Amino acid sequence: MNTQTLLDLLEKIKQHTLSPQEAVTQINGMLSSYLGFAEVDVHRGLRTGFPEVIFCQNKTGEQILGIAQEISKHAAQILLTRANSTTAEILRSRFSSVRFYEQSGVIVIGPPVKGTGRVTVVSAGTSDIPVAEEAAVTAGAAGANVQTYWDIGVAGIHRLFSKIDALRQSRVIVAVAGMDGALASVIAGLVSCPVIAVPTSVGYGAHLNGIAPLLTMLNSCAPGVTVVNIDNGFGAGYTAALINRLGE
Amino acid sequence: MNTQTLLDLLEKIKQHTLSPQEAVTQINGMLSSYLGFAEVDVHRGLRTGFPEVIFCQNKTGEQILGIAQEISKHAAQILLTRANSTTAEILRSRFSSVRFYEQSGVIVIGPPVKGTGRVTVVSAGTSDIPVAEEAAVTAGAAGANVQTYWDIGVAGIHRLFSKIDALRQSRVIVAVAGMDGALASVIAGLVSCPVIAVPTSVGYGAHLNGIAPLLTMLNSCAPGVTVVNIDNGFGAGYTAALINRLGE
Amino acid sequence: MNTQTLLDLLEKIKQHTLSPQEAVTQINGMLSSYLGFAEVDVHRGLRTGFPEVIFCQNKTGEQILGIAQEISKHAAQILLTRANSTTAEILRSRFSSVRFYEQSGVIVIGPPVKGTGRVTVVSAGTSDIPVAEEAAVTAGAAGANVQTYWDIGVAGIHRLFSKIDALRQSRVIVAVAGMDGALASVIAGLVSCPVIAVPTSVGYGAHLNGIAPLLTMLNSCAPGVTVVNIDNGFGAGYTAALINRLGE
Amino acid sequence: MNTQTLLDLLEKIKQHTLSPQEAVTQINGMLSSYLGFAEVDVHRGLRTGFPEVIFCQNKTGEQILGIAQEISKHAAQILLTRANSTTAEILRSRFSSVRFYEQSGVIVIGPPVKGTGRVTVVSAGTSDIPVAEEAAVTAGAAGANVQTYWDIGVAGIHRLFSKIDALRQSRVIVAVAGMDGALASVIAGLVSCPVIAVPTSVGYGAHLNGIAPLLTMLNSCAPGVTVVNIDNGFGAGYTAALINRLGE
Amino acid sequence: MNTQTLLDLLEKIKQHTLSPQEAVTQINGMLSSYLGFAEVDVHRGLRTGFPEVIFCQNKTGEQILGIAQEISKHAAQILLTRANSTTAEILRSRFSSVRFYEQSGVIVIGPPVKGTGRVTVVSAGTSDIPVAEEAAVTAGAAGANVQTYWDIGVAGIHRLFSKIDALRQSRVIVAVAGMDGALASVIAGLVSCPVIAVPTSVGYGAHLNGIAPLLTMLNSCAPGVTVVNIDNGFGAGYTAALINRLGE
Amino acid sequence: MNTQTLLDLLEKIKQHTLSPQEAVTQINGMLSSYLGFAEVDVHRGLRTGFPEVIFCQNKTGEQILGIAQEISKHAAQILLTRANSTTAEILRSRFSSVRFYEQSGVIVIGPPVKGTGRVTVVSAGTSDIPVAEEAAVTAGAAGANVQTYWDIGVAGIHRLFSKIDALRQSRVIVAVAGMDGALASVIAGLVSCPVIAVPTSVGYGAHLNGIAPLLTMLNSCAPGVTVVNIDNGFGAGYTAALINRLGE
Amino acid sequence: MNTQTLLDLLEKIKQHTLSPQEAVTQINGMLSSYLGFAEVDVHRGLRTGFPEVIFCQNKTGEQILGIAQEISKHAAQILLTRANSTTAEILRSRFSSVRFYEQSGVIVIGPPVKGTGRVTVVSAGTSDIPVAEEAAVTAGAAGANVQTYWDIGVAGIHRLFSKIDALRQSRVIVAVAGMDGALASVIAGLVSCPVIAVPTSVGYGAHLNGIAPLLTMLNSCAPGVTVVNIDNGFGAGYTAALINRLGE
Amino acid sequence: MNTQTLLDLLEKIKQHTLSPQEAVTQINGMLSSYLGFAEVDVHRGLRTGFPEVIFCQNKTGEQILGIAQEISKHAAQILLTRANSTTAEILRSRFSSVRFYEQSGVIVIGPPVKGTGRVTVVSAGTSDIPVAEEAAVTAGAAGANVQTYWDIGVAGIHRLFSKIDALRQSRVIVAVAGMDGALASVIAGLVSCPVIAVPTSVGYGAHLNGIAPLLTMLNSCAPGVTVVNIDNGFGAGYTAALINRLGE
Repeated sequence: MNTQTLLDLLEKIKQHTLSPQEAVTQINGMLSSYLGFAEVDVHRGLRTGFPEVIFCQNKTGEQILGIAQEISKHAAQILLTRANSTTAEILRSRFSSVRFYEQSGVIVIGPPVKGTGRVTVVSAGTSDIPVAEEAAVTAGAAGANVQTYWDIGVAGIHRLFSKIDALRQSRVIVAVAGMDGALASVIAGLVSCPVIAVPTSVGYGAHLNGIAPLLTMLNSCAPGVTVVNIDNGFGAGYTAALINRLGE
Repeated sequence: MNTQTLLDLLEKIKQHTLSPQEAVTQINGMLSSYLGFAEVDVHRGLRTGFPEVIFCQNKTGEQILGIAQEISKHAAQILLTRANSTTAEILRSRFSSVRFYEQSGVIVIGPPVKGTGRVTVVSAGTSDIPVAEEAAVTAGAAGANVQTYWDIGVAGIHRLFSKIDALRQSRVIVAVAGMDGALASVIAGLVSCPVIAVPTSVGYGAHLNGIAPLLTMLNSCAPGVTVVNIDNGFGAGYTAALINRLGE
Repeated sequence: MNTQTLLDLLEKIKQHTLSPQEAVTQINGMLSSYLGFAEVDVHRGLRTGFPEVIFCQNKTGEQILGIAQEISKHAAQILLTRANSTTAEILRSRFSSVRFYEQSGVIVIGPPVKGTGRVTVVSAGTSDIPVAEEAAVTAGAAGANVQTYWDIGVAGIHRLFSKIDALRQSRVIVAVAGMDGALASVIAGLVSCPVIAVPTSVGYGAHLNGIAPLLTMLNSCAPGVTVVNIDNGFGAGYTAALINRLGE
Repeated sequence: MNTQTLLDLLEKIKQHTLSPQEAVTQINGMLSSYLGFAEVDVHRGLRTGFPEVIFCQNKTGEQILGIAQEISKHAAQILLTRANSTTAEILRSRFSSVRFYEQSGVIVIGPPVKGTGRVTVVSAGTSDIPVAEEAAVTAGAAGANVQTYWDIGVAGIHRLFSKIDALRQSRVIVAVAGMDGALASVIAGLVSCPVIAVPTSVGYGAHLNGIAPLLTMLNSCAPGVTVVNIDNGFGAGYTAALINRLGE
Repeated sequence: MNTQTLLDLLEKIKQHTLSPQEAVTQINGMLSSYLGFAEVDVHRGLRTGFPEVIFCQNKTGEQILGIAQEISKHAAQILLTRANSTTAEILRSRFSSVRFYEQSGVIVIGPPVKGTGRVTVVSAGTSDIPVAEEAAVTAGAAGANVQTYWDIGVAGIHRLFSKIDALRQSRVIVAVAGMDGALASVIAGLVSCPVIAVPTSVGYGAHLNGIAPLLTMLNSCAPGVTVVNIDNGFGAGYTAALINRLGE
Repeated sequence: MNTQTLLDLLEKIKQHTLSPQEAVTQINGMLSSYLGFAEVDVHRGLRTGFPEVIFCQNKTGEQILGIAQEISKHAAQILLTRANSTTAEILRSRFSSVRFYEQSGVIVIGPPVKGTGRVTVVSAGTSDIPVAEEAAVTAGAAGANVQTYWDIGVAGIHRLFSKIDALRQSRVIVAVAGMDGALASVIAGLVSCPVIAVPTSVGYGAHLNGIAPLLTMLNSCAPGVTVVNIDNGFGAGYTAALINRLGE
Repeated sequence: MNTQTLLDLLEKIKQHTLSPQEAVTQINGMLSSYLGFAEVDVHRGLRTGFPEVIFCQNKTGEQILGIAQEISKHAAQILLTRANSTTAEILRSRFSSVRFYEQSGVIVIGPPVKGTGRVTVVSAGTSDIPVAEEAAVTAGAAGANVQTYWDIGVAGIHRLFSKIDALRQSRVIVAVAGMDGALASVIAGLVSCPVIAVPTSVGYGAHLNGIAPLLTMLNSCAPGVTVVNIDNGFGAGYTAALINRLGE
Repeated sequence: MNTQTLLDLLEKIKQHTLSPQEAVTQINGMLSSYLGFAEVDVHRGLRTGFPEVIFCQNKTGEQILGIAQEISKHAAQILLTRANSTTAEILRSRFSSVRFYEQSGVIVIGPPVKGTGRVTVVSAGTSDIPVAEEAAVTAGAAGANVQTYWDIGVAGIHRLFSKIDALRQSRVIVAVAGMDGALASVIAGLVSCPVIAVPTSVGYGAHLNGIAPLLTMLNSCAPGVTVVNIDNGFGAGYTAALINRLGE
């Protein structure tokens, strides 16, 4: 709590230009602001310019609609993850701008944002696209200019190399891979920007539902790689947008 | 490989201003550059402005000295990790500027770099300092202005809150924690910049040598957190410097 | 077996005021009581004043009704866990006081108990409510005055701080959290009563169905935390009631 | 922050009986108190009547002495865990009352506390005594009247039964066991107070350094059991003292 | 291969009382018998006096019937595990003696065997009965006199003690338990015969589908315990019958 | 990139027999060939003489048909894994030669290949046949002469010994086993060719969905064994064909 | 507690042939005997005819000598496990018959027992001998006639087959194996007696210190196998002796 | 056992040109040969043309010398793994040709073998060289022409590409990698021969002593990869030689 601001406020009481009751309200507000409470609630405007987020899993379409209507009173843009087409239909009955991304189950409400900078999202295989799309749409909704390249895993490494210029023009890269998860290491060895690695649950047997690529990525022999939870496209896209914004 | 550049080069052959033999050399160079080979070798100048890195574990002082002397021919700054005081002594016999960080075992050779931006490195406990210092020195050597706060874990959460303004002025935060690893989640809920979480092996029993805080951090309920390997202060500091640089 | 009591009894035989046959019965009873057998059967009145418990999973509604009717002959209150609305309907046809808690699937039969002391149950997220409610209803049925706060996880830490006075007035706190499980550590750092931590299976990927918050909680950097099995709201509520009762 | 208290204070400013400068100081104090900061620092008086704690591992005897002297300025009693006899000697040179518990490596500085209530600490085997003693000494230093029974594991269950009366007179029991960890379940089935289970790393092979008894205890078929980390005698003793104190 | 027998056979060739062609057949038979091949095929008469076994999982009723009819040509008794009531119906259309055990899904075809010796099978809880019944029926079909006690787990340890005489009259005990799996250790501490411990998958969370009681049992602090796979009632009953037979 | 070839090409420019534009195309082609790109794309002709492969899981019959028709333009043979009978029907409507292997869900399109050499595929149990068949069909489609023996696991080891001559005539053996996975070690101890071990997910409890036989095989006490992922019949058959081809 | 015996005793009081005081003592004795307490203490005569056991790990030679002298007052034979040659020397100074088994670190005090029946102990490799010898010496000291075969693992399976007659004459077999642990399954498929499998920690990498053969053995495809903890030669030998004794 | 050969032999008895006693010896020999016993003993001539192998770990120099002298009576070449320089010295005192490979601790006794074919062994980092050298020396001693490339991991992928022609001329490649283990996948995507992947224990934290690269390799997205145990250079080199030999 800024001492000078508090002192100024208390001076006003002394000079009878502010009542103690009003001051209590203002001090509580300052306290709240001091702790950053107005900003930190994950359900009420996490970071300036970022969309509000609703996790739809285990919620009915009606519940989601209710929350979305409440949020829309103060937020221009809403991001919904783990949603489905039924929910999209329900939302379309009340909102004019509803974009539904089928593979990832992401919905964005609100006018499209013109992205800045460059976040590149790549997937190793076609089965990783749902997670990769979640990352791409999240980053885009959070203000990033997003480029995507699907199915460029290391089994056919020329597919990756043909995108090398685009990769090098990125501020941050999100590398999504299941199976052996080797993609993140290879990319990090070729570029000079941060790489956010997302292991996916695509695989079987000793893949252990994503533990295998998670470990691969945590042990990357190339520096510059950080990792998020298995299938956490949202977290990767969100952090990528945070990093991308630093370049403004 | 840029098509226009190649075409220009071939035109010169056609016009006999370049011999085919010379062209072969140039084309090979272009190919090499196309693949970014000159840049990507982890032992020869990873990224512009970043120090060369020597991992000292399992190397003798003499071997390290030899490598350092070789590198010093083309690099202004060298970072050595997992080193000890004996190695520092040996290096001091040949280099004029050798800084040895005792807790983390990091050595930096070369004139101090004036950092820019702001990377904040925090540790949950005093036992986490070796890893945190490795992160801080690495980020500093890679050009970041680094701020550090040790022993501000969540068991005494007011210690964390008293640093909240400093945390919020960071471009990126490195949160180093063993035990329950809860620090990263709590910080990410309070700031609007990316948080790189570093689990440490500090703990016992069900801590599983760092697996416990690693899992905690991967499952952070606050977005904006990415994770590196257990005790990987170097990787966190390195990536933090990459992110910090975007803010220039 | 109390020696004096036994001696007194044997004296009566000697004085022919008690027949050996009657003494055998009494000695067997003393033996049984010595071993605490009358008290310890989990299905027949575990602890004085505590309800009988029926685990409903894998039992039909009819089977549950039968068991409940049998128990009701000697117990004033019955707690049923992992039940559903169909079972609640069946029970209502025979019992006058049947409260069904839908989210947790807990049923309480018998007149409401007026609670004493203070057990506070908190959940980190809304998805943790089923487990948290199981804890709260269990503690309440076992005689505790229960206070609940849902969705006050560390991602928006001001939500937790606004409940700090209530938390500090508790005799014992049950902290229910999935994801990173950081809530228990943060609370234990702020209060001076015991904290029972309940990890939940809410999460995905490296969450490992609750192993991640379980490890977090076992490694809490703040003392005063003990832990129960993943999703074991019943066990936490039960133990909380045992502790709360000590304050009478 | 209590609204009425704040209002009263601001009224004083209005009435010029308090200067704004003085008020700033008082408001900062109230804020600090509101967040409980004075109480929660783990190194400065965790809970009223509880000793200060120093973890000695990785600290030199001189460092420990320095910390102890600093703490002794404001605290009557200091508990040191993971210490050794050398440290005890050094401390004895400056403090008059130094008790060293050899098996557990615990040191208590300060006049013995007369315990109240009843905490019973039991160990399954003789190899579990170091951990059990850490629990017992901790609970005692924190004001509990402590009873201990070593080597009463379930392999010779009559040893346990011969202590049944003592167990039943406890407010809380700490059950310390390695190997199969079955002791906690058996005890919890025989008593009506809370049982804190401490798995130890005593065992080999599929014992996995304590994971086996940890899992056993988390899955206890008898309710009333909560669990702490492997070998965490301190945590168990500390929490037992917290619970025991409720009985005053 | 017995040298004398072979020599005798070859002598017959020399004396022209056996043709070389016939000798080849006999030698091959001796070789087969030498290696025990006639006995060891798991689907054709494993051990003298033991029933043939059909694992029904993933087989249609018709397939099972076909196999049973084939086996019945040379075997008096057939044991079918993991079967269901439909299969029992189909078998009853062709076989006169078909006993179906509903809880375990075991079917026995053939006249009841009069058991000898004493195998005691106990279960800790009612949910463990399916696995325990599989063990009991298997041991019975293999010629053992089987005694069963269900729901005598350690949470209510007097239930176990009231069976102590019966347990002590056993040649071998099969102890089936999920949850904490403590039953096997407690029993082994009370009897002087071998105990075969069967962990079950009954539990949740940190039970890890049976890994918890499996580890408990492998780490039993009482000697005399050996362990089979999770839910492997068949294996335990089979081995119990082998051991029981030694007592004849 | 072959220097002489490049030089020759550049000479043609010099001599004006090749235009720079045409040369750019050829150089790009050489570059691509240098990196092996034409060969390495897993969807376009991995290795000479090997079929193209389509993984059918999560694809509709129509999608698969489209891909197959596209591939058939340049490939004589197509292998489809994880397919079903519906897909087989759809493919039969357009292709004349469609073989569907029901147990493994493998489809081969194209005229049967006459195999060479000898790959032997064995399964330990009947439940392992789906994986074993996937290996056998894959190796066959890739040009190997394949021999198969099902249900010859070590529980009835004479079944294995009766195939010993056939095993010894193999260039490479694929050993498929769930349960204890012991088959691979036993075979490797009896033959002098490489053994590719395939653990399967057939088992329960401590089998951990195939982790048990995977570990068994990785720890084989007989040299000559290499291992693939759990249930990865395709990978084993593919590598076996690669090895078999070396014998030509 | 036998009712008739108790009644008889009480009758004596009635007839004044027994004083109540004396009866109290006798009843306590009967109670103790009822619970089997005299027999079950692991340190005081576990089972009739079995040696007393001292685990020497973490005990000094002097401590061990003291315990041994105490035990020798009532026991003819003492078995010491995890001992060393120094301890053997110390014991030899006081006891006349001390046999020290160097590889396993087992000591037996007392006149050699003439064994009966047949327990066969086999090891897969030479590195497994320490564990196997512990099993063999334990079984021998407990009264079994023991036969041992070392280094007959499945990598050279003829070594195993040449012992097949001996194996088949056993009442029970203890199979000790590290690496892949396949030995137990193969033996169980060849004999008709129970097999106790002992995994050892001999191996590296994915052997996980014995977890690999432990899982192999728990998943044995041949029935008749039960398993003890990794390196638990004592437990296997002890149980083998219990089983062997049934054959008398 | 070949029927015709046996028949021929028996005919000789019939014709009195062979005595039954001599025939017994020959039949036993045939039986032995039938089972391949002469070949399969891992310590006595595993495969034709392959060296004998001695694992030196836990053996004294004298013991190793004794074994080597015994083996040298019938074998031209001996391979010793996990040896040290002291052992090499001892062996040099008796054998004329002793090559000691310091990094891997491998010793080869006997005249150098001229290799055929081509086995290429590559390591990702310099720390992986000990394991890689073990593979290379083993393959060479078993008759392969071996090519090695150290430190060509994917972090600097141009180092790998510059060796691409050499890699493609191999019959089989052994890829040795710790850290993320990505090397095997990348290589397998570029070549058309089998790749044997060897994970190493080089790494820390979530590397889990080699489990991370082991899982990476088992989940390789490029076909043609098989895997051996962590640090098992011997097994990889041995199998590579077996495969290489097929190309003769």
